[in-house]
Amino acid sequence: MAFDAVKVKNDLVKWIQDWFEVNGPGCNAVIGISGGKDSTVVAGLCVEALGKDRVFGVMMPNGVQPDIDDSIKVCKALDIRNVTINIAGAYDSLMAELKEKMEEVTSQSIQNLPPRLRMSTLYAVSQCVNGRVANTCNLSEDWVGYSTRYGDSVGDFSPLSNLTVHEVREIGMALNLPRELVYKVPSDGLCGKTDEDNLGFTYEMLDKYIRTGICEDEEKKALIDRKHKANLFKLQLMPSFPYKPEE
Amino acid sequence: MAFDAVKVKNDLVKWIQDWFEVNGPGCNAVIGISGGKDSTVVAGLCVEALGKDRVFGVMMPNGVQPDIDDSIKVCKALDIRNVTINIAGAYDSLMAELKEKMEEVTSQSIQNLPPRLRMSTLYAVSQCVNGRVANTCNLSEDWVGYSTRYGDSVGDFSPLSNLTVHEVREIGMALNLPRELVYKVPSDGLCGKTDEDNLGFTYEMLDKYIRTGICEDEEKKALIDRKHKANLFKLQLMPSFPYKPEE
Repeated sequence: MAFDAVKVKNDLVKWIQDWFEVNGPGCNAVIGISGGKDSTVVAGLCVEALGKDRVFGVMMPNGVQPDIDDSIKVCKALDIRNVTINIAGAYDSLMAELKEKMEEVTSQSIQNLPPRLRMSTLYAVSQCVNGRVANTCNLSEDWVGYSTRYGDSVGDFSPLSNLTVHEVREIGMALNLPRELVYKVPSDGLCGKTDEDNLGFTYEMLDKYIRTGICEDEEKKALIDRKHKANLFKLQLMPSFPYKPEE
Repeated sequence: MAFDAVKVKNDLVKWIQDWFEVNGPGCNAVIGISGGKDSTVVAGLCVEALGKDRVFGVMMPNGVQPDIDDSIKVCKALDIRNVTINIAGAYDSLMAELKEKMEEVTSQSIQNLPPRLRMSTLYAVSQCVNGRVANTCNLSEDWVGYSTRYGDSVGDFSPLSNLTVHEVREIGMALNLPRELVYKVPSDGLCGKTDEDNLGFTYEMLDKYIRTGICEDEEKKALIDRKHKANLFKLQLMPSFPYKPEE
């Protein structure tokens, strides 16, 4: 079946309006603007749903962000209020503490700290502007757990987490967003590699597998399945000891 | 019915063992040690479940923490490895950015930033020691939403979130933990007030209402109900636009 980007875009706009009506009438959508396609599309959807005066962009470089111009471009194209909060001071301070006190600081620890600091910053800003924080993960990333738990993986509402990378791009074009942002090569900005370098397969392959169950390359298929299974916990509530008192 | 603290304590220990067996065989439990009863009881449970060598305490003062001696006491009493990571540098840096860039920094924003920075720190430590992060919320707090979303409210596993304050204390005594820690007056350490000052009702009243449905004071009952309803979203997964492709 074909993906009807205009219809889904309109449904998304309606869903965002309804969600705010119930969960924050008059509140503003707060979005971390990375300069990548996902945050761009979420910002575009929120502007269409709520009007540009109710959308607030937050740029959060860790020191110098090479593609910060793209973030600025998004805010300008959508004409939304925005702020830049540099997380470098916070990151450097915690990293210095860790390096001094821990025997070893793993690369996993180093790579996941910025997304968690960005979440902390995003909520701090949100609580200053009567905000609700948008999550910007898409289905393809979530499928293989390509996000930081309690970092970029969270938020108050999530427009894109049931849409593949391909579908998100189509929605971006339906929103008339700048093509160079919608088709920008995805990178987490953490380690200098593209997402596809990190993952070991292309989003095209992954998207097709998610939507059709078909993946011609058996090795990549097994890799996707492995990542999917290993990361399912990220999409679930934290398990708790299930005590119930007897009647 | 009576609360059988020894039985529930043993069930909890078994649950923690089983959870680690499935979700992190050989991993260490990482616990933010605030010096309050909840983190003390969780640490005590993890020591009994996994042995003291697999429990790692993290103290996270924001500058000077007046009751840090209690945190140290917990780590000594249980003889667990521990580290102190001061979050003051990170907090001060982000707060300076916010004060410079935002029109207004609300008290809500100021109070919720440290718990989120502690979560970020706890995971950074956890990822250095092959850890799994314990959540230390109890049912009474969760019932009225007395926690910071994506701050102290999260973790990888949650031993106490279906147990009231009263029940947590009983379990603490069943673990033979120091009475002065188990019965310490709960305070969030954020604003100088006790929890009960902040909430407007006692935990005794709340616990009874949770377990029996009875609250003699109609005004307090309405206040509890209001807080419960307003904060239910904190215990749920973030809502997402529910797209499903047609077959």
